[in-house]
Amino acid sequence: MKLLEERILKDGKVFPGNVLKVDRFLNHQVDVALLNELGKEFYRLFKDCGVNKIFTIEASGIGIACIVAQYFNVPVVFAKKSLGKNISADVYSTQVQSYTHGRVYDVIVSQEFLNKEDKILIIDDFLAQGCALQGLISLIEDAGAEIVGAGIVIEKAFQSGGELIRGKGIRVESLARVASMTDDGQITFCD
Amino acid sequence: MKLLEERILKDGKVFPGNVLKVDRFLNHQVDVALLNELGKEFYRLFKDCGVNKIFTIEASGIGIACIVAQYFNVPVVFAKKSLGKNISADVYSTQVQSYTHGRVYDVIVSQEFLNKEDKILIIDDFLAQGCALQGLISLIEDAGAEIVGAGIVIEKAFQSGGELIRGKGIRVESLARVASMTDDGQITFCD
Repeated sequence: MKLLEERILKDGKVFPGNVLKVDRFLNHQVDVALLNELGKEFYRLFKDCGVNKIFTIEASGIGIACIVAQYFNVPVVFAKKSLGKNISADVYSTQVQSYTHGRVYDVIVSQEFLNKEDKILIIDDFLAQGCALQGLISLIEDAGAEIVGAGIVIEKAFQSGGELIRGKGIRVESLARVASMTDDGQITFCD
Repeated sequence: MKLLEERILKDGKVFPGNVLKVDRFLNHQVDVALLNELGKEFYRLFKDCGVNKIFTIEASGIGIACIVAQYFNVPVVFAKKSLGKNISADVYSTQVQSYTHGRVYDVIVSQEFLNKEDKILIIDDFLAQGCALQGLISLIEDAGAEIVGAGIVIEKAFQSGGELIRGKGIRVESLARVASMTDDGQITFCD
């Protein structure tokens, strides 16, 4: 998506270790007008899939998911991260490795909010190693719900997550796919 | 706000210790259509105040803030919670006690995203003891920005936060003000 790629080039910052910071418009300060454009694009891609729920993970996925949900006219459910607390019996839970924060989270969702009848679109800001996305998929599978696909804002296509998730037969649509980043700040996108 | 009070009575759950769970529509599953009604009401209340930025705190404030921001046509900035990590030099930081989670968080915001020229509307889901709200106010004050007011979805009016913050001369508008809750699930609202 041209608009998003241009914004990444303008306001994204590259740090050593393949870190791409987009906190000027996506996950610290949030350009809600841009999110609406992303929402329209996700709707164009998934509008014929019978989506009845958007599923994401706290924290930075929530704002994007809420804006996207307006186009589908469906509710959002966000999975919660918990660290070392007791997991109650009425939730689905899984563990997610965070490379960014160097720790493992328990990720939970109340069983009340994912059901067998659901057709779920996953929305998240980033896809890199795919750990968070795999966690969300695992929670949906536990609930016996259907995964319509995953809508990702930025995919680091040079990392393994996209291939891994698509290899499971899950449709992944990323609005910007970064082919490479250099430590001096050059970003190139996949065609 | 009648619509919100009715929804709290219908879908809210009271637990001992004055816990009000609204995770069916506000902070786990999110009714985005309802958020839009809240957004319209916050806009009606604050539309003449020159708001140029909405400020909230992760995680459950983010979705509400993003929907509200559409009515003001301004960006959102959300403060981040961090637990025991190093605080870098380019952020404003403060500490916030969470009664819900029984711990103290460092709460940070990049200095880049709060400026002296800003007129800021704070948005959050709950106001009880007022700890999170005081933290956000402290960050805004550190930046030298102007606080237009705070828009709260649900205020526990029987706890001290509302009085405390209003006592500082800050305008607080809560769309539902809970006067009392009983352990058997009765909820009454302020007139």
